[in-house]
Order: sequence, then structure tokens, then C-alpha cells
Amino acid sequence: MTHGNHGGDCLRSNILDFSVNINPMGLPGRVASIISKSTDAVLSYPDPSSERLKNRLALLNNVKPENVVIGNGSIELIHLIPRAIKIKRAIIPVPTFSEYELALKANNSKIVFLNTDERDNFKVDPAKIADALKQCCALFLCNPNNPTGSLLNADEVLRIAYLCKKRKTTLILDEAFIEFTKEAAASGIVKEAVKSGYLIVLRSLTKFFAMPGLRLGYAVAHKNIIKKIAGFQYPWNVNILAQLAGKEAIKDRAYMKKTPVFISEERRYMSEALNNIKGLKAYPSSANFILCKLQDASIRDCGGLKRRLLRDGIYIRDCGNFRGLNGRFFRVAVRRRMDNNRLISSIKKAIR
Amino acid sequence: MTHGNHGGDCLRSNILDFSVNINPMGLPGRVASIISKSTDAVLSYPDPSSERLKNRLALLNNVKPENVVIGNGSIELIHLIPRAIKIKRAIIPVPTFSEYELALKANNSKIVFLNTDERDNFKVDPAKIADALKQCCALFLCNPNNPTGSLLNADEVLRIAYLCKKRKTTLILDEAFIEFTKEAAASGIVKEAVKSGYLIVLRSLTKFFAMPGLRLGYAVAHKNIIKKIAGFQYPWNVNILAQLAGKEAIKDRAYMKKTPVFISEERRYMSEALNNIKGLKAYPSSANFILCKLQDASIRDCGGLKRRLLRDGIYIRDCGNFRGLNGRFFRVAVRRRMDNNRLISSIKKAIR
Repeated sequence: MTHGNHGGDCLRSNILDFSVNINPMGLPGRVASIISKSTDAVLSYPDPSSERLKNRLALLNNVKPENVVIGNGSIELIHLIPRAIKIKRAIIPVPTFSEYELALKANNSKIVFLNTDERDNFKVDPAKIADALKQCCALFLCNPNNPTGSLLNADEVLRIAYLCKKRKTTLILDEAFIEFTKEAAASGIVKEAVKSGYLIVLRSLTKFFAMPGLRLGYAVAHKNIIKKIAGFQYPWNVNILAQLAGKEAIKDRAYMKKTPVFISEERRYMSEALNNIKGLKAYPSSANFILCKLQDASIRDCGGLKRRLLRDGIYIRDCGNFRGLNGRFFRVAVRRRMDNNRLISSIKKAIR
Repeated sequence: MTHGNHGGDCLRSNILDFSVNINPMGLPGRVASIISKSTDAVLSYPDPSSERLKNRLALLNNVKPENVVIGNGSIELIHLIPRAIKIKRAIIPVPTFSEYELALKANNSKIVFLNTDERDNFKVDPAKIADALKQCCALFLCNPNNPTGSLLNADEVLRIAYLCKKRKTTLILDEAFIEFTKEAAASGIVKEAVKSGYLIVLRSLTKFFAMPGLRLGYAVAHKNIIKKIAGFQYPWNVNILAQLAGKEAIKDRAYMKKTPVFISEERRYMSEALNNIKGLKAYPSSANFILCKLQDASIRDCGGLKRRLLRDGIYIRDCGNFRGLNGRFFRVAVRRRMDNNRLISSIKKAIR
């Protein structure tokens, strides 16, 4: 697997890292104290299949534990799904998160890439999907999409889910960033996942709760699909500190409520400021990151910008290795105001 | 996967747990303080493929980093290997660790089980293996073996490794407990693994360094095999605290030196005491656990013993679900003297 082509591969610790998409509010509630107090916990094996955390996440989503499977990061589940549901050929609208492709290739699954339109802000067109569905047994959809930030609303997603079900195509809906959007709560998609048999909803606790170091994600689906995925997991896949931190994190309802409000406000502020920089386009985003493009077609890539920002101690995600984008695209996370201002003024200075 | 059929599924926290085989000396060196001080570390993604830890483990084993792959527990590697090296049919001498079978079955590999002889203390007979090798492309060998504690010495292992290589059969040598034996250092097996192309050595950091909650293991093999295994891994498979703790743990050479001496002395003490209990047989062990058997053939299983020990707050590993054993077998870990004495007197009381 080609690692190191994601964000977060920045190794200097004193750097302001805009390449990773984690919650700028820091660790929720008592997570930090749970970790620092749990050195004795590591002396014990974790709950082999995270039953207790699973129960809590089932409650949180108003589903049964049999509809939930916990992963060592949602990325473990992304890599298990092609094996578990035996995907022969899948659709991936691009640009999107690169691991769907890697997971499918590791399973020798064929892939149909569906280009989205830059002029349409890379939004997935349900009509185009309907056409492609005919020959595929799976569709990977990231919503809101990484790295573009484009969002299909609840109605659109449900429409695609129904369409997939009708065609007996499994929709793998990766909602790794959905809790960062204000529309998260409106989605009835989890209820649909439980009964559909052709819908798997993926969630990440890593990004929203700002603990990517611990690895934690989950899937919600019909119990038969969950059984198949769990059937390919090995025991103790999730470490005990991730289990403890996960249980603690989802207790912090204030953090969960405050985050999308905070992100929405900061994103609006950043988008405006970035779009005001001559030669830069910031695409509309519903997530906690913003895709940008250097508009001058004579510039080959954002390597120069990246180097200049690094001199100011700032790291961004060069998006040249995303299928469907080119070297002039880059992605920045939405962080706290002071940090965002540093980024903006540093970009201004660099592009000028 | 059927979880919960391993040791360590004991949920009461005030229990003296003899079912898990971890180092009774507790966390080494500064591991506890590293964890409690690293709450900020979880805000960052782990090193995607644990390069820095890999470098340290390569140094420790006097091999190159290209000969090492890190797993989310060695169990991740056990589950990847059948896919990575495309095992069609494998030999498993039994009784042994049950995950080899589960990992092979998940890959639709066929399995030839090879019974070892109770009268020979379940020691693997190299001659029998030679016969079976003819039809198989892989051999799983746990050394010292879980749950029997029997050990093949360095010469015997090398002989089997050469035999495998000659037959183009890959030997997967699981040395999860080798550091607990005094003979560990004598083994030239890692050197052989690096050049063989038909030998994979698995190691666990979880058990020896008493941190099973964190999940950490590794494999040493020819670089082409390592590439194949790593090719099926997803990024960030090992969490950041396991990486930090692992790097810290292997610095503690005193702990590494003291452990096998301590274990050897306690095991001798326990074996003698257990064998002195009428109706009980303790098999010779070279590991940090001891396989025992209730000798009275009229007793169906050790369920009664287990229940009586639980009343004293003691938990043992019932071995009835190990292929090749029956309900009258159980396994106990080697712990500290005070705990071991509690176990011994509790068994005495229960069996009387």
C-alpha cells in the first residue's frame, strides 16, 4: 500500500499543520485525563470486539449493537468491505479519498471512476451515477467529500441509496466528516442503513474527536452485512485506550453540538478571505477543510507555495496526487481563528 | 471470527487473572510515564507505517528495516500472511494458538492438522513434519508453543526451516513467547529469516512488555515477503501510543535480561508445586505459562475447578476449545510468587 500520500505526513512537531482534517477544538471532555490515568489499562487486553463501545455507539445512533462494527480507524473497515461483501466492480466518483481505490485494488476488484465537474464544484451528479450503476455492485461515496468539501444533502443521499438498493448495488457511504456539518442531524440515513441490506454508513471518531493517534471508526449497516465485515476482523483490533477514549468522547454532547457551529463560522470566514486573495479560488465546502486552486494556469503546481508556507512554519495538503485533480490544487483544514489568520496572511504573502 | 475464545476474557477487574500470558513484571521502564505524558500525541496521526519503530526493531534484531513489518498486534500479521503469500494449504501442528486456523479459513486456505503426542509433552516431531510438507505450501509453528509450553531448540527450528526451504514451503514461526525463554538469545533464526525467502518470524511486544492493551507485534523476513505483507496493510494500522511505548520498551535492556531468569525460576517453582498436587499433571514448559491436566478420567472437564477458583477470585484458561486437547486441560500463566502461591493453594483446596 502506498502510505504517506495522505495529509498528516508532516514530521516537524512545531509546525502549524493544515494538512490534517481534525477538530480544532482539541480533545473533548475528559479524554485527556482518561488517557493519562489509564496506564494500568494497557496491562490488560482490550475488549476483543469492542462490545461495550459498540453498545454506546448503537445507543447514540438509535440502532441495535448488531448493526454496528468497530474498526481500528474507519480505514480498517474500508479495507475489509471489498473482501467482506465480495466486490467485483465498484464505482468511485473522483476526486475523493484515495483509500477506496487502494482497498479495492488489494481485493482485485475492478473500478469505474466517475469524474465530477470542477465547474459544478465537484458535486456528484445522481443522474450520472444511475447510469454507471448498471455494471457495478458497489458505490463508494464520501459525504461531505474529501478533499472537495462538497455535500449531498440528506434527500439526495437517500435518493441514491434507494437507487442502489433497487439495482442491488451496495452503497458505501463514508461519513467521516459528517458531524462537522450542520446538516448531520437531519440525515435519516442510519435508519435506512439498518434495514436496507445495500447500504453501509462509515463513521470516524478519530477526526471529529481530534484523536487520530488512537484509531477509531465504525460502520452501521444491516446485521447480515455487519456479520460479514466482523467475520474478517481479527480479535483485539482496537486498542484499549481508543475504546476508553471513545466511550468518554461521545458523552460530551456540548462538544458535539458546538463543533459544527464553530466550524461553519470559521469556514465562512476562511473561504471569504481565501477567495479574496487574487489568483486563488476556494471551493464551497460543507466540511472542516477547504479545497483551493491556484488559478494561474501557467503555474505547474503548488510546490512553490508549499515551500514558502513551510518557511512560515505552515503545512498544507498538496492535492496533486488525487485522481481527478492536478498539482494546482491544495487543501487546508479549518482551524482556530488565530491559526487561520496566520495561514491567510502567509498565503497572501507567498502568492503576491 | 469467533472472539472471546482466548484467554483474557475475564471481565471482573479485581480478579487474579492466570488466563493471560503477559509479563508479570509489569510495564518496563518509562512506558507508563510515556503514556500518561502523551495525551497530546493522540492529537496527531501515527507514523503511517511505523517507520521509526521499525528502524529501532531492525537495530535490535541486527537486520535491515526492509526486513521488518509492524503489526497492530502480531495477530494482524497472522491474518495478513495467508493473503499476502497466497497460502493454498497449510500445516498446523496441534494443539496450538487457534488464530492460525481462523486466519487460514478466512482466506479459504486448506489446513492439514498434525497431532502432537501428549506422551511426548506435545513436542512437534520434525520427522512427521517432513512427511506432511509434501503437499503444503506453508507451516505454522508456535515456539514455544501456546498452550503447551513445549519448545523446539534453535537447532531443531533451523533444521525445520531448512527442510521447508528445500520444499519451497513457507515456515511461519510464531515466537510470541520466545523472549520469555532463556534460549531466546541463542537462536540464529532471524538471520536465517532475512535471507531464506521461506521463513517468517513473528514477534509480539504485547506479551513480553506487558502491554496487550496497546497492540504491537512485528515480523522479520526476506524483504520480498515483507513487501507482500505490507502491501495488504492499511495506513496508520498501529496507534501512536503503541509506537511510543514500543520505542521506549525496547530501551529497557535490564527488563529484557531479567524477565527470562525470573520466569524460569517461578515456572520451576510452580511446576513442582502443581505436579505435587494429587490428580494434577503439569506439562514441562519453556514459556511463561504452564499447561495442566486433571488426571482423573471420570472428570468431564475443568468447569468445576474453574468455578471454585473463581470463588477465590482466580481465573484460569480452560483449554477445552483447543483442537487436540479436551476439557480436562487448562493453562495458567506464570506470575509473581505471592500470586502463584494463591493459585496453588486454591487449586489444592479445590481438587481435594
